[in-house]
Amino acid sequence: MFLALLLILAVWTGPAAAQSTTVADWGEADLATAAALRDRALKGTSAYDHVSSLVTEVGPRLAGSPGDEAAVRWAMNRLGKLGFTGVRSQDVLVPRWVRGTTEVSLLGAAPQALVAATLGGSIGTSEEGIEAAVIEVPSLDALIGNEAPDVKNKIVFINERMERTKDGASYGKTVGNRVRGASAAANLGAVAVVIRSVGTSDERFAHTGRMVYDMDAPRIPAFSLSNPDADSLSRHLKANKQTRLRLKSTARELPPAWSANVIGEIPGTDRADEIVLLGAHLDSWDLGQGALDDGAGVAIVVEAARLISRLDRKPKRTIRVVLFANEEFGLSGAKEYARLIGDEHMKHVLAMEADTGIGPVIRLETQVAPESLGAIETMRKALQPLAVEAGNNTASGGADLGPLRSLGVPVLDPVLDASLYFDVHHTMNDTLAKVDAKVLDQTVAAYAVMAYLAATKQDDFGRLAPDR
Amino acid sequence: MFLALLLILAVWTGPAAAQSTTVADWGEADLATAAALRDRALKGTSAYDHVSSLVTEVGPRLAGSPGDEAAVRWAMNRLGKLGFTGVRSQDVLVPRWVRGTTEVSLLGAAPQALVAATLGGSIGTSEEGIEAAVIEVPSLDALIGNEAPDVKNKIVFINERMERTKDGASYGKTVGNRVRGASAAANLGAVAVVIRSVGTSDERFAHTGRMVYDMDAPRIPAFSLSNPDADSLSRHLKANKQTRLRLKSTARELPPAWSANVIGEIPGTDRADEIVLLGAHLDSWDLGQGALDDGAGVAIVVEAARLISRLDRKPKRTIRVVLFANEEFGLSGAKEYARLIGDEHMKHVLAMEADTGIGPVIRLETQVAPESLGAIETMRKALQPLAVEAGNNTASGGADLGPLRSLGVPVLDPVLDASLYFDVHHTMNDTLAKVDAKVLDQTVAAYAVMAYLAATKQDDFGRLAPDR
Repeated sequence: MFLALLLILAVWTGPAAAQSTTVADWGEADLATAAALRDRALKGTSAYDHVSSLVTEVGPRLAGSPGDEAAVRWAMNRLGKLGFTGVRSQDVLVPRWVRGTTEVSLLGAAPQALVAATLGGSIGTSEEGIEAAVIEVPSLDALIGNEAPDVKNKIVFINERMERTKDGASYGKTVGNRVRGASAAANLGAVAVVIRSVGTSDERFAHTGRMVYDMDAPRIPAFSLSNPDADSLSRHLKANKQTRLRLKSTARELPPAWSANVIGEIPGTDRADEIVLLGAHLDSWDLGQGALDDGAGVAIVVEAARLISRLDRKPKRTIRVVLFANEEFGLSGAKEYARLIGDEHMKHVLAMEADTGIGPVIRLETQVAPESLGAIETMRKALQPLAVEAGNNTASGGADLGPLRSLGVPVLDPVLDASLYFDVHHTMNDTLAKVDAKVLDQTVAAYAVMAYLAATKQDDFGRLAPDR
Repeated sequence: MFLALLLILAVWTGPAAAQSTTVADWGEADLATAAALRDRALKGTSAYDHVSSLVTEVGPRLAGSPGDEAAVRWAMNRLGKLGFTGVRSQDVLVPRWVRGTTEVSLLGAAPQALVAATLGGSIGTSEEGIEAAVIEVPSLDALIGNEAPDVKNKIVFINERMERTKDGASYGKTVGNRVRGASAAANLGAVAVVIRSVGTSDERFAHTGRMVYDMDAPRIPAFSLSNPDADSLSRHLKANKQTRLRLKSTARELPPAWSANVIGEIPGTDRADEIVLLGAHLDSWDLGQGALDDGAGVAIVVEAARLISRLDRKPKRTIRVVLFANEEFGLSGAKEYARLIGDEHMKHVLAMEADTGIGPVIRLETQVAPESLGAIETMRKALQPLAVEAGNNTASGGADLGPLRSLGVPVLDPVLDASLYFDVHHTMNDTLAKVDAKVLDQTVAAYAVMAYLAATKQDDFGRLAPDR
């Protein structure tokens, strides 16, 4: 009994003990500066101007496209004008896929054009297109499961709806339809795949996004339908099992093109060789303006760093903003960054990315050494009055951080409210009209505080076990 | 003082006196039947099924198109199956405009495609398209006013936003930009006109709709931009007065085609030759599914009449449902109907149309003989618990009723809640996903009650002064 009580006391004192370690992590002046930085950002930042400038002057910027080139120039100029130091680019070779035109029609007495997108990476059709009957399946699992339907010479329609969730976790549950649907269908003899968009809105926009062919599967074209059009097709199939579609696409792959990561820094004081990395990606899909994906992320990290650069009390470590090339089409920018830094990865104390829209930050997840979790809790508390929950320590931290994480770099993963993000993600409707400046400012406040505290912390965040 | 009190009393007794006249208009059984009809409809109707069937089996149905032909067949079959009597069509010659393809691009280092629609009736461009600098004006009035800017050889951009209002009254304030913008600009030497869409949503959809050329103005192409794209263009112009657009359209006019009004009736008992007309239009714009405009209206009037046909106590007068051809492109169906009925217009006791979406009904406007206003008030009260306000007696009653009204036929104009209607009106986004079955049922309840009471009322609603 006494032992049990002791154990309970031990558990109870846990958090207090963890907090007491943070007294050593930061001095009073560091924490006061972080609080002032937060309050300054909450009063209003220039983040909206950054997104507005990017989407107005550049707009869509698919990897390797003229828009992508313009985005690299924009980023170099912007970071320079804002007073970043060491502004530079790293050449990155990127795949160059071109959408061309897309036509999906429901055949019948009066053919109906459906709102569709060719999925990123898909081959096109022949000039005549594909005309075939449609087989509906409720999910990728149902397609490849034991009861796989006979889809030979047919068009497979994967009709699974992505549910709306606050943290966007449902994306992971349905995105496989998009990524692997084509090869799964092709392996069963289908001539094309059409999926319900991986997206949450009932507005009539098709969601694009990358698909990947299995090495040994026949290559068939892949399309997505807007949610209302997936509804229509499904209603048609209920009334008439013989429903046919006509599919046409002039999508094609061109030779790889050069793009670039763009880098700028806020130099540290006495530990300038140590780096806190703030990442976002500069490329976007071709359909929209890339305001949320990832113009907002670019604005968040650029503005967080800029606000830190204006402080009297500079951070000890260098804050490095990296605007990655080509997140959407295979992460070649992130991989090239990790390759080019070589051993400098050991000097990367922490990495954070912003790539799920405008926010606000609702939860703080991490993957850091367990000894640092007390410090993380102090950082989270420094964000008040922003209501940011504590999260787990198994976060992945954003797609562009994968290669760094594999090398052992700890990551901090602020989870953004993504309730509305997947309404417009990868659609034509990803525009500045979806950017709420006030919400964006809150996210900037959170990123700025976290970056500042990471860059002034006495000890580092440990290292992760490298993947390979 | 005593006189003043008498006057006040007179005013106070006004409504009561008006109500007392209605005792003669309907017997208790009529009013009880109306109440039962209302309650029956509020429990759920087949209206949603009617819209779903129309948009699924037919879809877009621009006047004179194959979809329009399919819609006429659909309507004949639907009315027949539902047990309407005298199901018939009236041939109507309609203009046949074909949209073709539309391209609007913002020129620059990385040209940006803007989301645009060619306006209905516009000519196309030459194959090379039009490339010119843009002049922004805040409204049509500013363009034609005293301070008309120099727009010679330029593209005029009319950048006026339609405000969101509950009854949609703001549509009338901005629709002139669309209808008359091209000729106003052409008269000043412009080479094309681009308007901000006449629509309230920030989703990235361009709103089409009919434009009309002045007889003696040069014909120039006319386009609309989605609200976010109008925002983009305006931001560009703020930064760079030399901003140029490229415009291409293959729109063209084909020879007129045949369409048809479709008519079905619920026959009256002892005054079967007298008609209460319930109208909606069968055609739609080509971009969307025409679910709200005017699939919902078709469903409302068809279902209201069908519910009346199921009553034990039949109405005295005949209820005639008319699904008009070609509302969108010049009302040729409505004009042909009025021409074909000849003197029968004298037997049209009242006409109502449903053409502003799903509802609910928020106000009851009319244009009837003043002596009938007491009866109108009784009809309004019969709609409770639906919260329907009393409205004025100067209503126009819907575009298709214009020719009948001109002949002297009184109109009843239920004002529908149009708060969200102009988000999707005339866009690709006018789909079944925007139809809320429960709201639609409320509107059906209101239309059914009003039609039933109009068809059982002892006296008629008088006649209007004919326009000509």
